[in-house]
Amino acid sequence: MDVLTIKKLIDRLFPIVRSITGDGFRQSLAIISDYLPLETKSIPSGEQVFDWTIPREWVIRSAFLKDETGRIVCSLEQSSLSVISYSEPVDQWLALDELKPHLHFIENLPDAIPYVTSYYKPGWGFCLPYNVYKKLPEGRYHAFIDSEFIDGELNYAELTLLGNSDNLVLLSSYLCHPSLANNELSGPIVLALVYQLLQKRTDRYFSYRFLINPETIGSIAYLSREGESLKNNMAAGMVLTCLGGPSDCLSYKKTRQNCSLIDKTIEHLRCTGVIPLTIREFTPVDGSDERQYCSPGFNLPMGQIARTVYGQYDGYHNSLDTPEFMGIEPLIKSADDICSILHALEYAGKFINLSPYCEPQLGRRNLYPNVNSSNHWKDSSDVHLKDRTFLNSLLMILNYSDGENDMVDIADRCEVSLLELIPVIDKLIENKLLKRA
Amino acid sequence: MDVLTIKKLIDRLFPIVRSITGDGFRQSLAIISDYLPLETKSIPSGEQVFDWTIPREWVIRSAFLKDETGRIVCSLEQSSLSVISYSEPVDQWLALDELKPHLHFIENLPDAIPYVTSYYKPGWGFCLPYNVYKKLPEGRYHAFIDSEFIDGELNYAELTLLGNSDNLVLLSSYLCHPSLANNELSGPIVLALVYQLLQKRTDRYFSYRFLINPETIGSIAYLSREGESLKNNMAAGMVLTCLGGPSDCLSYKKTRQNCSLIDKTIEHLRCTGVIPLTIREFTPVDGSDERQYCSPGFNLPMGQIARTVYGQYDGYHNSLDTPEFMGIEPLIKSADDICSILHALEYAGKFINLSPYCEPQLGRRNLYPNVNSSNHWKDSSDVHLKDRTFLNSLLMILNYSDGENDMVDIADRCEVSLLELIPVIDKLIENKLLKRA
Amino acid sequence: MDVLTIKKLIDRLFPIVRSITGDGFRQSLAIISDYLPLETKSIPSGEQVFDWTIPREWVIRSAFLKDETGRIVCSLEQSSLSVISYSEPVDQWLALDELKPHLHFIENLPDAIPYVTSYYKPGWGFCLPYNVYKKLPEGRYHAFIDSEFIDGELNYAELTLLGNSDNLVLLSSYLCHPSLANNELSGPIVLALVYQLLQKRTDRYFSYRFLINPETIGSIAYLSREGESLKNNMAAGMVLTCLGGPSDCLSYKKTRQNCSLIDKTIEHLRCTGVIPLTIREFTPVDGSDERQYCSPGFNLPMGQIARTVYGQYDGYHNSLDTPEFMGIEPLIKSADDICSILHALEYAGKFINLSPYCEPQLGRRNLYPNVNSSNHWKDSSDVHLKDRTFLNSLLMILNYSDGENDMVDIADRCEVSLLELIPVIDKLIENKLLKRA
Repeated sequence: MDVLTIKKLIDRLFPIVRSITGDGFRQSLAIISDYLPLETKSIPSGEQVFDWTIPREWVIRSAFLKDETGRIVCSLEQSSLSVISYSEPVDQWLALDELKPHLHFIENLPDAIPYVTSYYKPGWGFCLPYNVYKKLPEGRYHAFIDSEFIDGELNYAELTLLGNSDNLVLLSSYLCHPSLANNELSGPIVLALVYQLLQKRTDRYFSYRFLINPETIGSIAYLSREGESLKNNMAAGMVLTCLGGPSDCLSYKKTRQNCSLIDKTIEHLRCTGVIPLTIREFTPVDGSDERQYCSPGFNLPMGQIARTVYGQYDGYHNSLDTPEFMGIEPLIKSADDICSILHALEYAGKFINLSPYCEPQLGRRNLYPNVNSSNHWKDSSDVHLKDRTFLNSLLMILNYSDGENDMVDIADRCEVSLLELIPVIDKLIENKLLKRA
Repeated sequence: MDVLTIKKLIDRLFPIVRSITGDGFRQSLAIISDYLPLETKSIPSGEQVFDWTIPREWVIRSAFLKDETGRIVCSLEQSSLSVISYSEPVDQWLALDELKPHLHFIENLPDAIPYVTSYYKPGWGFCLPYNVYKKLPEGRYHAFIDSEFIDGELNYAELTLLGNSDNLVLLSSYLCHPSLANNELSGPIVLALVYQLLQKRTDRYFSYRFLINPETIGSIAYLSREGESLKNNMAAGMVLTCLGGPSDCLSYKKTRQNCSLIDKTIEHLRCTGVIPLTIREFTPVDGSDERQYCSPGFNLPMGQIARTVYGQYDGYHNSLDTPEFMGIEPLIKSADDICSILHALEYAGKFINLSPYCEPQLGRRNLYPNVNSSNHWKDSSDVHLKDRTFLNSLLMILNYSDGENDMVDIADRCEVSLLELIPVIDKLIENKLLKRA
Repeated sequence: MDVLTIKKLIDRLFPIVRSITGDGFRQSLAIISDYLPLETKSIPSGEQVFDWTIPREWVIRSAFLKDETGRIVCSLEQSSLSVISYSEPVDQWLALDELKPHLHFIENLPDAIPYVTSYYKPGWGFCLPYNVYKKLPEGRYHAFIDSEFIDGELNYAELTLLGNSDNLVLLSSYLCHPSLANNELSGPIVLALVYQLLQKRTDRYFSYRFLINPETIGSIAYLSREGESLKNNMAAGMVLTCLGGPSDCLSYKKTRQNCSLIDKTIEHLRCTGVIPLTIREFTPVDGSDERQYCSPGFNLPMGQIARTVYGQYDGYHNSLDTPEFMGIEPLIKSADDICSILHALEYAGKFINLSPYCEPQLGRRNLYPNVNSSNHWKDSSDVHLKDRTFLNSLLMILNYSDGENDMVDIADRCEVSLLELIPVIDKLIENKLLKRA
């Protein structure tokens, strides 16, 4: 996707009134599927998923708050953030004092409309700028919300891109927030960009699964279906969120396992300076869907990748989180860096030396100089034999590919980046001296 | 026990001529039992206990050293420290040079009478201040010790206060030194104080065993009876010794296991500043009965708690270790701090999240805000929901209560003290989301 | 061996034209066997050893390079380094340009003749100083090498000195380089010196095996015969190389296991300052026969001991590596220090406390003061009871000899050198309180 295509995609997705269920969510999935051909699944309202129950679908048709004069204070037409998600229907005149408990704003961001939800507790409310709120005159107000709860379904959508092995990398994002850019649209859009890059490659080692669901309840529902299977074949995963924004580099939140393969790989890429990155420790206290994947019953190697992180910018969960704030270049850069990480990850695991008793005779394979003269190095016709680093890496890989050390360990011992080892690994595999563990 | 009661108890115990066996020891047990209702046990003289043999009882009736003029140089009547414990009977006139090998003193503490024993090697001797020793004139001396060795028994005394589980905390002290305060009476007295505090609590998780024995041979004898059983049910333990004295804070000697639950708990309490403490590493080179509990065949999680530690004050093992040096306030403070440690220890172990697959739905249990608006936090009627620290701790406890992490680990992750987690743990247990592992 | 004997041995060995096979190698083995009575073994040319094939024997009778005028540019008579080892026969006139690819020299050491081999790639060549090379006039040259390849054998030679146990320490060196001193003769000569020191001792715990082979192919051949057996009974080992030279102290390259018993012991001896040492990490990238022993299929605890290390001095692999550079005193010092290391190693393993339940009663064995008076320490007739360090070490050894800690761990805990513990260990064994694990 080029910049223009991305811009058009954002324009289509941004205005939709989305929530964790319903037409807005399905419509958004349909749009993103133009670029990432997902298959949509459903779980019926009322089904028990672990400790939770799939909620009914919320239908929202219209919502406004008017003063005595008929002037609109706020309305769904003005902003999809104006009404609390999952508000009950209401059609009522109230005095200002009666109304106030139903109004939400952010005092220190007086022009922003906050994003408020109440999925599991009946109620209703409006969200508006503090500058509007504070000037509301005494008097009576007309609160009108035309909403409905219906037995329907919860949806998620997925696609698996097969690789040379069944080992699965799960890339997940969510799509339930209305009219928020960095903390909503950036995730699914980068997911689509990563898909388009990966599907061009024919030599994928991992299979890659792309998943979009409503946050929290969606991943709980997904895990109720797929959790046990993921325990068996998931090699690594990342939740994609907040991947636009002005920050210089990606920010990775580690998995609960703390030193799983993806954690080690990303830490290594950061330390060797190959990909600029900051790293956050795992915590269940905040974050996104990784909180469910990393609950102790699953403890899956699911990290989270972001750029300008939730809670660290003013626009988080309010109307300042605009497409302008997000930007398109950061989305493209995020997708590129994520693909580099995944490329390294494919070589990060354990390999096995197929000739482990003494050194193999590398000379007859033209992998070692046959004449031990310093002249030789300069004169060799074989490019990689001119490069002592190549030979040293080769000897290290053979010696330490014993089923204990993974390739991150070996790259660290070599004091080179894992990416630099890839041609050496490929050469050893070609010579039948190495295979994947 | 109030200050006056403690003072009277000291006055009764201090003058008694005690040794590792005999009437003095039994009489002392009877007195302490007025406050700590112990049951006395016995093992007959001559019984083999591991590599040792229970010695015969030592009966001491009278002892003095007189000069030619009949003037008393030292006598048992003057000080119970005057005669070497387990001295053989003697009634003999000797020249000063013959006498000198039988005299013990401390040259650099010239007014102190040392405490000397010779339980397992036949012999006799007197202990006296160096200032007296150095002025002894040439001439003949009358050494008289009316002692006897009889087939009797070795005694120890114990009491178990039951809790909600069979897991046992063993609190042990010794009572064999005569007329020494900090390094003798402080241990049993603090043991009695701790007993009185713990028996008031009805919600004890652990069972607590209180034990008093003669040092070294007593714990060896006790372990010959109870060692195998302790291997099965002992969660932790401490030897109580030297708990009076002027030092600012308690001093804990770690168990040989080095990171057993009680070691971790006390290290945590020290680091979080909840209880001022210094910590000593385990060593078999000096110390008290923990040397036996921590011998490699048992390796029990037995620490040692002290205040002004043996060997670190002038009065150690001599007549300067008086009730005045010991003080009563430090005894009370020691008992209070030990009870705080034990309270923390009851919550220090592993717990299990009963809803480990994804997060449980905390909102419907009123443990999580149902509306994700910053307004909500301020307005919640539920006290603990106003407190983000409470919720964060709750999420951490649920996520890490996986059978691997104990509550000290989790408190360290939360960067709060274990004591602050206790109400959160209780709330989760009440909601059936957590149980003890 | 005294200095003169060593000097004569060097004079006999230095001029021999050696390679990895053939008469030169066998002749050298015969000479060294006057001091180290090795038994020579053979493996026939053509046999497969792991990934390698035993090469044919190289017979070299004569070699020279002459210019048009018949003047000798270089010849085997002048230096055994002049011809590339395993050169094919040649008798040919060439123009200077045709000749140059066959000439080897070291530009930045213009007077040195390099040491060059081409065991596994057919070819021929001469080695000469750069100062000679650069003045070669245009014209034609007569290259003459009278060599032959015959079906013969590869030889190695070994000797096992039995100890009290089957646990084997393998001391290996190589003897295939011609006319190089530090990086050739130092290894076998120190091996002979160590043999003569060890065979005088009657209380050897380990059995010691002495091995000399041609480098790389020799150890690969040896491992094809003995590798599986070494996996069972090899406690430790060292490759001896470059043990002459002016460096202040020995330099130890760790085994691939990184913390095997010999690694721990040598690290401990270095830290306690008992033997001055530098330590190198294991690497498969350079080194000697330990690369084969430490290949992942074997992973034997084989270190390498050197003094002035290959690659760290100008004369490495060229004619500057003379007997004068090597020196005789460093050889003797190396042998002495290696014997000290081996003595410590014999006590470095695990021991078991035979009285592990409580402390044993040391007093009745005269290992602990029977009277607890400070006077006693000074007056004891038993030397080791005057020494509190002895008693402390004894208590530490008993407490930690639990099958988990080895004696290096215990020495570190005691903060003394392992050598200081040896008399305490011997005393405990004599008292039947300790045995080897």
